[in-house]
Amino acid sequence: MIIIMEPSAVEEEIQKVVGRMENLGFRTILNRGDVMTVIAAIGDKRLIDPATIAAMEGVREIQLIQEPFKLASRESKKDDTIIDLGRGVKIGGDHPPVVMAGPCSVEDNKEGLLKVAHAIKETGAQVLRGGAFKPRTSPYDFQGLEETGLKYLKEASDQTGLLIITEVMDSQDVGLVCKYADIVQIGARNMQNFKLLKAVGQCNKPVMLKRGAAATIREFLLAAEHIMYAGNPNVILCERGVKGIDAKYTRNTLDLSVVPIVKKYSHLPIMVDPSHGTGRRYLIEPMSKAAIAAGTHGLMIEVHHEPDKAYSDGGQSLDIPMFQSVMKELNSIVDLLVKKEKAVK
Amino acid sequence: MIIIMEPSAVEEEIQKVVGRMENLGFRTILNRGDVMTVIAAIGDKRLIDPATIAAMEGVREIQLIQEPFKLASRESKKDDTIIDLGRGVKIGGDHPPVVMAGPCSVEDNKEGLLKVAHAIKETGAQVLRGGAFKPRTSPYDFQGLEETGLKYLKEASDQTGLLIITEVMDSQDVGLVCKYADIVQIGARNMQNFKLLKAVGQCNKPVMLKRGAAATIREFLLAAEHIMYAGNPNVILCERGVKGIDAKYTRNTLDLSVVPIVKKYSHLPIMVDPSHGTGRRYLIEPMSKAAIAAGTHGLMIEVHHEPDKAYSDGGQSLDIPMFQSVMKELNSIVDLLVKKEKAVK
Amino acid sequence: MIIIMEPSAVEEEIQKVVGRMENLGFRTILNRGDVMTVIAAIGDKRLIDPATIAAMEGVREIQLIQEPFKLASRESKKDDTIIDLGRGVKIGGDHPPVVMAGPCSVEDNKEGLLKVAHAIKETGAQVLRGGAFKPRTSPYDFQGLEETGLKYLKEASDQTGLLIITEVMDSQDVGLVCKYADIVQIGARNMQNFKLLKAVGQCNKPVMLKRGAAATIREFLLAAEHIMYAGNPNVILCERGVKGIDAKYTRNTLDLSVVPIVKKYSHLPIMVDPSHGTGRRYLIEPMSKAAIAAGTHGLMIEVHHEPDKAYSDGGQSLDIPMFQSVMKELNSIVDLLVKKEKAVK
Amino acid sequence: MIIIMEPSAVEEEIQKVVGRMENLGFRTILNRGDVMTVIAAIGDKRLIDPATIAAMEGVREIQLIQEPFKLASRESKKDDTIIDLGRGVKIGGDHPPVVMAGPCSVEDNKEGLLKVAHAIKETGAQVLRGGAFKPRTSPYDFQGLEETGLKYLKEASDQTGLLIITEVMDSQDVGLVCKYADIVQIGARNMQNFKLLKAVGQCNKPVMLKRGAAATIREFLLAAEHIMYAGNPNVILCERGVKGIDAKYTRNTLDLSVVPIVKKYSHLPIMVDPSHGTGRRYLIEPMSKAAIAAGTHGLMIEVHHEPDKAYSDGGQSLDIPMFQSVMKELNSIVDLLVKKEKAVK
Repeated sequence: MIIIMEPSAVEEEIQKVVGRMENLGFRTILNRGDVMTVIAAIGDKRLIDPATIAAMEGVREIQLIQEPFKLASRESKKDDTIIDLGRGVKIGGDHPPVVMAGPCSVEDNKEGLLKVAHAIKETGAQVLRGGAFKPRTSPYDFQGLEETGLKYLKEASDQTGLLIITEVMDSQDVGLVCKYADIVQIGARNMQNFKLLKAVGQCNKPVMLKRGAAATIREFLLAAEHIMYAGNPNVILCERGVKGIDAKYTRNTLDLSVVPIVKKYSHLPIMVDPSHGTGRRYLIEPMSKAAIAAGTHGLMIEVHHEPDKAYSDGGQSLDIPMFQSVMKELNSIVDLLVKKEKAVK
Repeated sequence: MIIIMEPSAVEEEIQKVVGRMENLGFRTILNRGDVMTVIAAIGDKRLIDPATIAAMEGVREIQLIQEPFKLASRESKKDDTIIDLGRGVKIGGDHPPVVMAGPCSVEDNKEGLLKVAHAIKETGAQVLRGGAFKPRTSPYDFQGLEETGLKYLKEASDQTGLLIITEVMDSQDVGLVCKYADIVQIGARNMQNFKLLKAVGQCNKPVMLKRGAAATIREFLLAAEHIMYAGNPNVILCERGVKGIDAKYTRNTLDLSVVPIVKKYSHLPIMVDPSHGTGRRYLIEPMSKAAIAAGTHGLMIEVHHEPDKAYSDGGQSLDIPMFQSVMKELNSIVDLLVKKEKAVK
Repeated sequence: MIIIMEPSAVEEEIQKVVGRMENLGFRTILNRGDVMTVIAAIGDKRLIDPATIAAMEGVREIQLIQEPFKLASRESKKDDTIIDLGRGVKIGGDHPPVVMAGPCSVEDNKEGLLKVAHAIKETGAQVLRGGAFKPRTSPYDFQGLEETGLKYLKEASDQTGLLIITEVMDSQDVGLVCKYADIVQIGARNMQNFKLLKAVGQCNKPVMLKRGAAATIREFLLAAEHIMYAGNPNVILCERGVKGIDAKYTRNTLDLSVVPIVKKYSHLPIMVDPSHGTGRRYLIEPMSKAAIAAGTHGLMIEVHHEPDKAYSDGGQSLDIPMFQSVMKELNSIVDLLVKKEKAVK
Repeated sequence: MIIIMEPSAVEEEIQKVVGRMENLGFRTILNRGDVMTVIAAIGDKRLIDPATIAAMEGVREIQLIQEPFKLASRESKKDDTIIDLGRGVKIGGDHPPVVMAGPCSVEDNKEGLLKVAHAIKETGAQVLRGGAFKPRTSPYDFQGLEETGLKYLKEASDQTGLLIITEVMDSQDVGLVCKYADIVQIGARNMQNFKLLKAVGQCNKPVMLKRGAAATIREFLLAAEHIMYAGNPNVILCERGVKGIDAKYTRNTLDLSVVPIVKKYSHLPIMVDPSHGTGRRYLIEPMSKAAIAAGTHGLMIEVHHEPDKAYSDGGQSLDIPMFQSVMKELNSIVDLLVKKEKAVK
């Protein structure tokens, strides 16, 4: 921790900070510049809330050197985490990107869901997505079929062999969702719902954690740390777009640089959701290709049997023929880029 | 709802959209321009998810005319909502700003809390704040005393006559928190935790809802709508700073224009938290004054008996003498600005 | 400068950085932590571009301690800069806020401008604003009357005794604008037009510099530094709203915390433009009051004799009776807050 | 143009708006809803500033239907603009991405520049970049060699056959820069320096326009419109990162979705600068690959012969061997993705 004192700080204030840090078990080094004094404090930051030091008289600013995420950091685990999702599907490391696809919401029309499930299975997708609990900005929008929806997903999985990913929105529902899902999803709006993070940290299913719409990378990795700290090491990170400068041509700004950044600073798998990340159907194919080129471990794509009748997010859903065409493109890129690279290694 | 068709849209696509809207009970008017056709659809937007229309072939873009919040809107209720918080304290309308103050977290040192409570009571503050459940970015930071903290708050309230506001983070804890709190707080990170909004919408205590750090005003008012729709009309909105351009000199950008905007478009009380909203102690006084001049219905200010030993957010907390001095300033402004205005009316 | 090495940095890399810094005249102190090494380098940062050190092998990150603005900083000049604008009007320090008002653009109708000028003079405003060169997002919008506009302003000034502020957009026009203006304005879009900053830095008129719509405070003060470094110490800073989360209810987010922040870190006057800062007419009065309560040194307010016929920005302009009513409010607040404070001192 | 009236608007106000629009040559259609009235006005928006209509009594909001950029829009020109940069190099349409590379600034060491130029030529890059006029946030940073720098670039071009791209910062320098450059660059900070846009719009060299750090896509295309409107149809757009949520792990957020968006709404070539767009050397390769997969028409990459001695932006520059290795990767992707596609067509 670097503690920068005000130019006006007096010796007594400097010594008080030094004394406080040493009492807390830090080793300190004083750097006296012409204008201001800087105190380097070496020790375990996690013992202390930096804001309380920042509150001491004469302190201008605190700068942290080591990030407070530990379990999620590359420093704590050099090898990539590879998560076995079931039925032989693995995500992370050098494994080719896992494709998760399906409708935004599970809807009353079960046949539609089954139709989508069979179609995506044929294209090579491995996981079926579909929301049974739906976070909706307005209370007047469709809120999800809840357990009925989970049962429909299960039936689709039984028929096709696809794994299931579905969102949980409340700590009280974690048990129920885990009963049906192969992967439990935490939505962007709940990225800092810490009670929910703790609850899924205590379940035995892999967790897919979406980045909040205004979350920094540090906040994103610390949210993963909450889950891991509660006992669950199997966290998959997912970029889904951040609130950006332009709100007219896209719903969000898909921040693909997160893929190589997370790979450098963490060992966890990182995937991309181009459907929410752009909010526009025609952007899904180019941004999926770009995500693969950037090194993503997975893709989540919305597909609906009749997008213009979808209960939610129809405008960013592909229909089945579009999805087939996108997958053909993506499979050929994966062959060229990802599998080739693996072969070379 | 305004439906803008692509310049390339063909007649069949236009008619399909018109037919769909009319089936949904909307009245439509076609405006054919030189370049593109625009369909105005008049009816109850809440019957339909606009994204599904946006997904139809030939549609470029949907523009909503009426906001989807209804219960929270000024149109549905012309008079200001004035909420009776208990012990004669009212918030909203022309009532002078209610001051809520206290430490960020309730800590082990109960005596410190009592000291703060007595001190703020003397200055004229009406509500004691203090977190018993703490949302913390890192799992290694102090997470709150939970029920013990609530008991400490109750004791402080019994001794001083102050009302209590405290945060609830999970739907499972709503019952417990309501037992102790006079006002239940929803934190910024949970502004779109819809299950929690529903749960507090079913309790009988006023709810103070903080604006999410990247929430638009529409999302903010829709979050209030969730609570009201679940049955609780007593919602107090609170601006606490949004993620801004500058992350060095402030923690957040305090968006004071929200005060007059909310007053225009909603009947609910709107208050301001300059402590989280700026993250810097020296900014609390000027921004509190500014909030009052902008017409705020309340202020939430962090005060700690020893800010440099606080478990959380010490850097933005006032100590007791500072708070007394700020309150002296604020009381005199309230006399000048708010009470004068009221007298004139 | 604090240089943080990668955990994987080897001794040779560390020594190479130390050697480089010492060659550049810095004194270095090595802090070896358990995980990583930190090098504190004490000396004049302005001798070196930190990015080149950041580029050395083994370096993770550079953190600057002292801000690179020097002439603009409070450290270099303890007393407030008070600028004499002419005709006895002073801005800065404890002087009551200077009000600058007038139409967005100077238009063909000279009589309208004169009408506005006389009206604002009567309310107590001291400076007439009006754009003769207009930065317009679209080339199809009105671009300004150029020298003719400047002449109209001069005539209005001669008739009323008001000072003139007007914008210059290009280095080639600085001489012309300075001939007519009492204060030269740099618009938000040109805040980092460094050639223009240099050109106004060489003229002998006070410069009002608007904050860019996405400028950090550091970038804002460094833009002022460019002007001062070129020779002109009379810079007035102006907050005019930043691009924010919400683009529907406001045009920009007016960041009033900049007022007390600039007052702490710089000696330059800081003022506020609530017209551009909100983009909504009904927000001008409450946000002007809030700006005064936050300590602003001045206000810039758009007034048009017929806002609904204005060539630009009519939606955020007041008409004359509205402006008179706002000024009555503001004058009474200034009496209460600002002059009282001054009396106490 | 869609004009939405306030629910409280009276008939007289509605008729006044209708009358005004019809006088301006618009055809109007009135849509009276239960809550509010909406006026659709069909005609040439460019005749009128919407803000003046927004300023009329009873008007709540204006929504534009047709974007005000015309020359830059796909609607005005269906075929891709392909620009002949000279020496047989073409950018746009189905042409493989053009690579522009070189140091951030042209520096005193001419030999370094020549070394870079020969090296990049060998890898297949077609254009040499290098700043002779440098926009620098601080006045204490290196400001560029000006004409001497241009001469060095010319010499490098003569030796290698590379084309030259270099930035112009001020309208007064356009003539000089055009004498040496094959492509004139407008930097992000000058994207809305309208006098400069006009000046380069009157020169006969292709212009590369960088997106401002907080520019919407509409503002970006309107800036191109300024250049085209002044007479120069050869505009190349360049995404270089926008100010984002995370300022710690990246310098900017590279918004790759702009590539397919611009391709849909405009006919102009669109390229990507991953060096400024990320600010981190290790992100250049993955983000360059991603840009190609997203369909970019070009890449601008910073290369320096000794990045750790660069005068500017060393931390995001590749050295020569790194650049060679990145180009090997990129060339193979281009072969796989772009040329294959072209072959299929």
